[in-house]
Amino acid sequence: MQSIESLIRPVADYPKPGVMFRDITPLLADAQAFQAAIAAMARPWADVAVDQVAGLEARGFIFGVALAQHLKAGFIPLRKPGKLPPPVRSLDYALEYGSDRLEVREDALKAGSRVLLVDDVLATGGTLAAGRRLLESVGAQVIGASVLMELDALAGRQRWAPGSEIQALLHY
Amino acid sequence: MQSIESLIRPVADYPKPGVMFRDITPLLADAQAFQAAIAAMARPWADVAVDQVAGLEARGFIFGVALAQHLKAGFIPLRKPGKLPPPVRSLDYALEYGSDRLEVREDALKAGSRVLLVDDVLATGGTLAAGRRLLESVGAQVIGASVLMELDALAGRQRWAPGSEIQALLHY
Repeated sequence: MQSIESLIRPVADYPKPGVMFRDITPLLADAQAFQAAIAAMARPWADVAVDQVAGLEARGFIFGVALAQHLKAGFIPLRKPGKLPPPVRSLDYALEYGSDRLEVREDALKAGSRVLLVDDVLATGGTLAAGRRLLESVGAQVIGASVLMELDALAGRQRWAPGSEIQALLHY
Repeated sequence: MQSIESLIRPVADYPKPGVMFRDITPLLADAQAFQAAIAAMARPWADVAVDQVAGLEARGFIFGVALAQHLKAGFIPLRKPGKLPPPVRSLDYALEYGSDRLEVREDALKAGSRVLLVDDVLATGGTLAAGRRLLESVGAQVIGASVLMELDALAGRQRWAPGSEIQALLHY
């Protein structure tokens, strides 16, 4: 775990002053450490049936695809607007300033499919909560969420509705 | 191979009139077919040393990460502008109308690292050629490229400089 953490590089004042960005690219570039991180993220779900892993564009694709392969599940991309051909289901959600939109294919999954939602970071929790609502709107049973890093001070976990859990590998 | 092809959905006139879009989301959602596609894409590189797989944002992340896992290689994201913290190396390249920019971390790899470049589609070849030049500018030895689909009529393969090859699983 220590070697995983040592490969996440803190970058002060990015993307704006006062923000400490956690750069995961050194971790991704190291085959063994990346594989170890994915194995550790997968562990809590090893005894749980997972039909599909849904990843949030774009860093969530990286961890989502790797987890899908590890768990022998399919992959569902949750995308930014205008990237998926019709028919799509959209969901607008509030950010700290302004709003954003997520999209998924309307026929992405069978009703009742057990879906694990994945992103790189849990910060304020708005995007993850929106991803869950969007997946549920197309019939998914969201069994939980998995992130590499959780920023504990932002308490994003409180925006996650009861009924399933969020697993985070690292805490800052 | 037939079941892989049957899970790629043609969408006429998307994203603009006259274009036939190939929607890969049904393939990704099917765990077995997605895994079979990755195994087939990996096969030509099985006996070649690959240090890292570089994926082009965003669909190239999906196939790139899966191939990196399969080949036990690290992963390098080639990103759209403004997504990676400094220090980054940028490269501007021409599109049919206008231009675009790719970025990579300056210290993404060790000099001489053997890198396989991955994207979902080879169309005109401009993005793949730009990705190769960007990787070479930070010291990579680009050993080849792998794509799921090649649009043969666009002859994008001709823009790939000699010295390494492009492998495509499907041709349209």
